Order: sequence, then structure tokens, then C-alpha cells
Amino acid sequence: MKEIKIFAPGTVANLGPGFDVLGLALERPGDTVIVRRTDDPGVRIASIEGDGGVLSHDAGKNTAGIAATETLRRAGVPGGVELDLAKGMPMGSGLGSSAASAAAAAVGVNHVLGEPLSPEELIACCVEAEAAVSGRHADNVAPAVLGGCVLVRSVDPLDVRRLPVPAGLHVVVVTPAFELPTRQAREALPKMVPMATLVRNSANLSALIHALHTGDLELLGRALDDEIVTPARMPLIPGCASVIRAARDAGSLGSSISGAGPSVFALCAEATRAGEVADAMMRAFATAGLTSTAVVSPADCPGARVL
Amino acid sequence: MKEIKIFAPGTVANLGPGFDVLGLALERPGDTVIVRRTDDPGVRIASIEGDGGVLSHDAGKNTAGIAATETLRRAGVPGGVELDLAKGMPMGSGLGSSAASAAAAAVGVNHVLGEPLSPEELIACCVEAEAAVSGRHADNVAPAVLGGCVLVRSVDPLDVRRLPVPAGLHVVVVTPAFELPTRQAREALPKMVPMATLVRNSANLSALIHALHTGDLELLGRALDDEIVTPARMPLIPGCASVIRAARDAGSLGSSISGAGPSVFALCAEATRAGEVADAMMRAFATAGLTSTAVVSPADCPGARVL
Repeated sequence: MKEIKIFAPGTVANLGPGFDVLGLALERPGDTVIVRRTDDPGVRIASIEGDGGVLSHDAGKNTAGIAATETLRRAGVPGGVELDLAKGMPMGSGLGSSAASAAAAAVGVNHVLGEPLSPEELIACCVEAEAAVSGRHADNVAPAVLGGCVLVRSVDPLDVRRLPVPAGLHVVVVTPAFELPTRQAREALPKMVPMATLVRNSANLSALIHALHTGDLELLGRALDDEIVTPARMPLIPGCASVIRAARDAGSLGSSISGAGPSVFALCAEATRAGEVADAMMRAFATAGLTSTAVVSPADCPGARVL
Repeated sequence: MKEIKIFAPGTVANLGPGFDVLGLALERPGDTVIVRRTDDPGVRIASIEGDGGVLSHDAGKNTAGIAATETLRRAGVPGGVELDLAKGMPMGSGLGSSAASAAAAAVGVNHVLGEPLSPEELIACCVEAEAAVSGRHADNVAPAVLGGCVLVRSVDPLDVRRLPVPAGLHVVVVTPAFELPTRQAREALPKMVPMATLVRNSANLSALIHALHTGDLELLGRALDDEIVTPARMPLIPGCASVIRAARDAGSLGSSISGAGPSVFALCAEATRAGEVADAMMRAFATAGLTSTAVVSPADCPGARVL
């Protein structure tokens, strides 16, 4: 039986002013999916590990299963697949856990079928999976599939672009031992935004894209400022404001909430600085009574791939 | 008496989704200011032509006068200046008429003083002039001084960047014989914007910046879509919707309102197409009962300069 093992990375979405628009792939953590082609039609989830027993084995209620089903459907080939899912990252942490499972499954199924679908089509399959659990957005699944830093111009129809990433740029992500349901984080978002705030957000987002293209790291740091989503979610995450401040004080370029939180990320000009920044952020979470773990990753990592 | 003659171009601001953030300089039309240094302190406006007699000769009530006064103040030198202002473009047309006067005056005064101020400082002087007549924004004055396509990340403190412009890109601007006061156009803006609309605007604006850097003209055209400012101002300009549609149908990359209107601009991949686009837009204004004039300009033109 043809079998393939795929790793898909966690991702940092909502990069500062880029809510629902910008995301980037991490080196680790990530999820692993083993895919076997079967004669029986449809998707069967054979095993799940690393989820603490909370994920459904029903392929229609699990992002790996939904993405696999959608990939099979679009490919239009007979037969089905069997999946072993190994969660390598916490759920509800703001690192795109559901997106990583979807990306690994879609890329894996496409691989065992002989790659009938394009990366963009696989992202569209993953969007269907995300829609079932956390809303119709692509800023986690697009970098989880493509790697790198990705701009999502449109979800329907899908229109995504990889952005250049300045050499040496690293990202620190610190995850506190605290679960923040994505739904609760979504509900905290403002429904309406004042025009003047929108203009400042547009200006920072434009500068962020320009800074990625030009490698202007100081501008990149300034442009990470977000007055809309970060302040709305900050009260849901103990210590969040002081963690972001600690990241800046320790010499990062800028810091904000990763995805829907509670993880907080910081961008650093080089790897050597990133360790100190991670330590400072973890100490700030500790002061707020939360233990946490940190990962440091280059900001330009590959997406889902065969192991 | 040392005398210098300066031309500053009209500008297209509010480029699609880039309200108050993006603007670009035209080849023409523009304003001309002659500056003479005087022993008497302060700014005296000696003459104004081409304004139909509506502009004040009081240096405190005229953007050329205010920008000149601010430039003198920041330079901190003794003596003053005398200005002859020649308006080469209609006022209230959405082509940055007040900004062109300010830019020509600031650059001219700086020149006769031996260039003590940087281009960024001159833009800041022009922002003071704009603030007196049309709001505290820099998306007209920054390209009028620097030339090219300019991103305004922040007005206070001033933080602006020139963006790359794809080779061959041209802009068509059609100005109907219809005055739309900037104040009325500002009042038509929504006070609050729904979050989902903000996300789509952010996505298009990001794509616009990315397209300028990569020269992806198709993406540039798609990214010009604006659901916030253009629809709010469209009802104030007779025929606006059909002019924008005509620009697209005639083969432009995309089209939107220039500045606060009533001028409408379109971007074109090359100069040969621009003439047809201009004709189609003028015909659409004519159908709405308005005569109009058109200019075609490269999208990457110089800013204020000595003639």
C-alpha cells in the first residue's frame, strides 16, 4: 500500500496590522499526517495521537479529514485514503494547529494521488476545513501549504502571494499554558472600526509590505503596530501587554499576538537576539502567573512537505 | 535680487484602497511659484494669476503663503520672501491643487535660502498648509515634493517612503467641469467601517504595494478596488460610476476617484492604451451632462523642481 508521511508547520497569522491578510510559516512545531491510498472510497481517520483525546475521528469533524475529503473530491479520482494524524502542537494556542493538520492532509493526499492539484487548489481545500472550525480565512493555511510569508488578497476566489522575507529575520513565539478558544477571541473583535483608525492601520500595513520588499527592518518593526485587533484581544490573555513590552525592551523589532492568541510573537533582526527576547517574554508571562514555552524560527521556512 | 521659479505637479491621492496613505505625482498640470528673497521678514504674496480671483493674497490664508512661512520659520534665517503664484490647474478638482501651491512655495523658499531643509522637512511644512484648508494629510504634498508614488506611513511624525513604479505604467486623469468642495467630499466619508470591509480593504492595499514592487500589473488593477471611500463619494459626482466602468471597459488596469474628486483616474499598462481610456472616460462624463478635460501622465514623474 502506498504510504507517505507529511509534515506541515505551525503558522503565525494576523501579523500586526495584517488581520486575516498576512501569515508566516514556522520551522516548528507542526503536525504530521501519514496518508495511505485505499480502494474504499472516502476518508478514514485510522489514528490520532498527541491531541489529548479531544479530536474527533469522524473525518467530517476534523480539519485533516475535511481537507482530505475536499482534496479527493476536487481530484475526482476513485478510491479513498486512510490517515494517521500526529498532533505536534497545542490546540487553541494561536499557532494555526487546525491549519497545520489540514495542510498536511491535503498535501499528503495530493501526493499519493500523483499531485493532480496545484498548491493554490490545496489551499482552497484547507480553507473548507478552516471554515468548519474557525472561520473562512486563509492566513494560516496558505503559509502552512506554501511556506514563507504569505499575503491573502482574497479567499473566494483564492488569490495569494508569497512575500519576500529579509535575510536573517527570525520570529519568536511564546505560548502560555492557557487556552483561549478561537471563538472567544473572534467575539472580542470590534464590529466597526473608526475611519481614522482604519487609515493608521492601512498606513502601517502598507509600510509592512514595503519593508518586507526593501529589507528595512526598522520600518518593519514600527509597522507592526496594530490598534484594532491586538488591543481588543489583549484583555483575554493574562500578561499580554507586558509580554509585548518585554519583547520590545529586549531588542525585538516588534511584537503582537499570534493568530487568535494566546501565543505572542516577536520579530527579530537576527537569531542571536531571539533567545534573549524569548527569555524576556517568558519571564513576563511568569510574572502574570503563566508558565510558557518558546520557539525561535527563521521567518522564511518551507511549508508542508514529505518527510 | 535672487529669484527662482519652481514648478510643482498635481497629484493623484487616495489611490483605490489607499485613502490618505498613497499618492502619486503627475507630469502636468501643476502650479508655478516665483520666489524672491527680501530683507523684510515674513512672506508677501506679490501676485496670483490663474485662480479666477478667488485666492487670498494674505500669506496666512493661502497654502503657498503658509508653506513659505513655515519653511522660513524652520530654516531660522533672517529676512523674508516675496512670491508670485501662477495656478496652472483647477481648484477643488481632486488633483491636489492646494498641495501643488504649497510644494512649489516650500521648495522654492528652501532653494533661495541655500537648501537648509530636507525634502521630508519641506513636506512637513506643506502639511501645515494643507491642514489649514483640507485636513492634516500628506498624500498630496508628499508626492508633490518628492515625485513618484509615495506611501505616507505617518503624518506626525512624518514618515514617508517612495514606492517603485512598474516601467511603462501611465495614469489618466479626467476632470469634469464640476466643482466638488473638499469639505463636502470629506463629510461623505463613513465615520465607521465594518470589520469585514476593513479586511478586504487591507488585503487589496497590501496587494497594491506588492504589485508595485513586483510589477504585477494584473494584480495592481484588481487591487485598486475600494469599497469604502469610492462608493461613499460616487453619488456626489454625476456619472462617476459609469466613468469608472468606461475606464475598465476601455482596457485600463483599474480606475477610481482622484483625491476628493470630482476627477477620476485610471491606471494603464502603457501610454498607447491611455488615450483610448481617456476618450472613453470623457464620453461617459458627457453622457452624464458634463464636459471634461483629460491628461495622460507617466506614473513615475518628478516632484517640485526649478524651472
